Amino acid sequence: MTEFVTADPATHDALRKAVDVTVDALSAALGAPGPRTPLTTDQLAATARALDPCPPEGAPLETVLADLAGVLDGSLRLGDPRTVAHLHPAPLIAAAAGELAVGLTNQSMDAFDASPAATFVEDALVGWLACEHGLVATGSGVMTMGGTASNLLGLLLARDRAGENVRRDGLPPNDWRIVASDASHDSIRRSAALLGLGTEAVIGVETDGTGAMSLAAFDEATRDQNVIAVVGTAGTTDLGAIDPLDALADRAADRGAWFHVDAAVGSGLVLSPRQRGRLTGIERANSVTADLHKLWWQPFSASALLVPDVGVLKAVHHASVYLNRPEDEAEGQLNLVGRSLDTSRRFDALKVLIALRATGRNRLAEMIDQVLALAQYAGEAIERHPELELLTRPSTVMVAFRHRGDDETNVRIHRDLFESGRAVIGRTRIKGAVSLKLTLLNPHTTPQDVDALLDEIVSAAA
Amino acid sequence: MTEFVTADPATHDALRKAVDVTVDALSAALGAPGPRTPLTTDQLAATARALDPCPPEGAPLETVLADLAGVLDGSLRLGDPRTVAHLHPAPLIAAAAGELAVGLTNQSMDAFDASPAATFVEDALVGWLACEHGLVATGSGVMTMGGTASNLLGLLLARDRAGENVRRDGLPPNDWRIVASDASHDSIRRSAALLGLGTEAVIGVETDGTGAMSLAAFDEATRDQNVIAVVGTAGTTDLGAIDPLDALADRAADRGAWFHVDAAVGSGLVLSPRQRGRLTGIERANSVTADLHKLWWQPFSASALLVPDVGVLKAVHHASVYLNRPEDEAEGQLNLVGRSLDTSRRFDALKVLIALRATGRNRLAEMIDQVLALAQYAGEAIERHPELELLTRPSTVMVAFRHRGDDETNVRIHRDLFESGRAVIGRTRIKGAVSLKLTLLNPHTTPQDVDALLDEIVSAAA
Repeated sequence: MTEFVTADPATHDALRKAVDVTVDALSAALGAPGPRTPLTTDQLAATARALDPCPPEGAPLETVLADLAGVLDGSLRLGDPRTVAHLHPAPLIAAAAGELAVGLTNQSMDAFDASPAATFVEDALVGWLACEHGLVATGSGVMTMGGTASNLLGLLLARDRAGENVRRDGLPPNDWRIVASDASHDSIRRSAALLGLGTEAVIGVETDGTGAMSLAAFDEATRDQNVIAVVGTAGTTDLGAIDPLDALADRAADRGAWFHVDAAVGSGLVLSPRQRGRLTGIERANSVTADLHKLWWQPFSASALLVPDVGVLKAVHHASVYLNRPEDEAEGQLNLVGRSLDTSRRFDALKVLIALRATGRNRLAEMIDQVLALAQYAGEAIERHPELELLTRPSTVMVAFRHRGDDETNVRIHRDLFESGRAVIGRTRIKGAVSLKLTLLNPHTTPQDVDALLDEIVSAAA
Repeated sequence: MTEFVTADPATHDALRKAVDVTVDALSAALGAPGPRTPLTTDQLAATARALDPCPPEGAPLETVLADLAGVLDGSLRLGDPRTVAHLHPAPLIAAAAGELAVGLTNQSMDAFDASPAATFVEDALVGWLACEHGLVATGSGVMTMGGTASNLLGLLLARDRAGENVRRDGLPPNDWRIVASDASHDSIRRSAALLGLGTEAVIGVETDGTGAMSLAAFDEATRDQNVIAVVGTAGTTDLGAIDPLDALADRAADRGAWFHVDAAVGSGLVLSPRQRGRLTGIERANSVTADLHKLWWQPFSASALLVPDVGVLKAVHHASVYLNRPEDEAEGQLNLVGRSLDTSRRFDALKVLIALRATGRNRLAEMIDQVLALAQYAGEAIERHPELELLTRPSTVMVAFRHRGDDETNVRIHRDLFESGRAVIGRTRIKGAVSLKLTLLNPHTTPQDVDALLDEIVSAAA
């Protein structure tokens, strides 16, 4: 039987064959030109509905993948220079190959005896990441499935420290406030809701023209408030702006509040000697969110919550008789369930380690510099363009702009490009007005690609 | 440049080569005999520490994987019949190959324009899963990264329904209680802590000898309590027991409480015509946790939270100007961020779909029947064995037992087998006493394998 990989070489052959046909199917689907095949919403829905998820009899993988061709063809192709809507990159090939290793070894990061080597690899990786983010010497953390989960864990630590025995007894009546900018990620408010504080517990502070938090507005908005957590955003979703982290660290310290930095977007800047200074203040954080599936070119899921000392994660520790036995931990075993809001969890650290070692730090730094330079270029090109209006100079990799027509024109541009498959660009609202957005994550995209994309955008307005 | 897959055929060649060397490395590591290589905890820790996560210069993938051989060799080999500690199976080869497709296409399940086809595929899959769990006609749900996350979402829905505007205003002072059995999963109490209710808000009801909740104890424990949620467990962690779901559905209905079924373990029983009747009552649930990375043989992450009507997930909906634009949804687009506690999220539905269609329902049903029969066999063999004591007849796939020696002997057996790499068995405490546990997830394991494993266990006591 070759359903699973075992010591039997026949199962290795079966694995190789399965992977070969998968590569064939992926090459065909992702090898088509353009960001997407122009299928309508109805066609895509019909394709999915037509597939029986579990027919009575199985089929060879070639057949299965042929039957799923419509699904694979209906994917967004992230390697195309005109796929610029969102913050997830084409993954490094080495990382995607790493996913095969993650999936096949299927180690579970909760218990040492479910991931004997993997546990120490993740521990070493988060220790290194913490150090790279300035949380030196004793820094550590835990991998999560995304920035939303990392932010939740950071804010949970802030919440549970604000009261006594919150974990055991629940929330006391409170006037606790979390302060974040108006441009902070949705997950801050969603976390407040989940944690039982309510979305209204989040004070949204105004941002300046670049999208960064205004310190004057912070001081005004937080006067006489019981602030338990200050959130600095290093890379906002729409404008890629970086809050004044060092000044926010001061303010958090003055108020005895937790300082959480959401660097889901901006974390990759630590790789670049030219850019890392822009995150100054992050080293004073009590917790940091870093998404490696953004500007580190990993596939989902690859986020981390980093802390200056692993001891702070004890707040989420839960003793389990079958997972984390204290007598075994006394002998050097490590059970990562004690750091995590999750139980079973993927060995995502493996693909990260594979891809970072394959790519190397110098090349990663260059990639960061390349995409930031590309965003500058795009900003300037838009600024020069008579039909387009740049909303603000790009801070990192997002370029927000409008066609000088009305809101309806901007909606039409976005839809027309998406529906025709010519380009997949971002669309948002900034200060209430429909805005377009490029998120430039591809270091292979050239200034000429950007020029051509802008031409396409302008022609779609006509 | 061949860092990413694009329309350029050279990148397809690079992908094929990367995957080939990854298969070589995995075949070598997983092809070794036995459940694990007997490396000490110190050796494993040293292996991880010796690896620079990100050296200045990159290296060919062959070199990277050769350098990581110690990590791969240090993995638990799940395909071995003596790997029986925990509840994660060797993944189906088709599903592991599917991970490559998930990673490489890297669709993000939050927004339609980040996953045009994938969105409808997940929607169809959770609709089908809901139907299979008895939530017919309008059933739906959302994929999550694990059972802990699915349980959290189910209990969040219960919490937010118990008060007014909880999401916006936070928790009111309350005496809300969640009722679950003493043997329910840790994540029930951990969710209560996260949700701000506190671990003490969970009433743990006694179980009977098989590990299933005692209804008399339920009635006694919940008298005069303000019960907002009743949790039925379909497959407890240690004994695999199934609570009396139908009777719990009655009790939840009587109290106007939410009925959540944690079928993380037992969900796979729906595949078997012989077994699915044991879940009767699940069709009355308000929410169901189903882990496909357990008895559906998928790699992590592959869990689902299922609901009888997608409308109940509106409670977690959060409007975002850049992800889920109402005007686009009016035209048929679907943005799954509106159902989820996550934002970016993997297209895990793809690997599931690939593996289910490759395997087929009849074979999956047979696999379920095989592992349940194997657990019965193991229970009987233990019962017959003069040196072993079966703690209770197996309900599903876990077999809990003790060596007739003392606690120390049982600890020693477990450790000796693990450290020598001869077997990786479970160890827990049941009614305070150290117990051993087999979790039999491998349909290729034979009764002879079980006999040999029991011999090994007994010999380790000597």
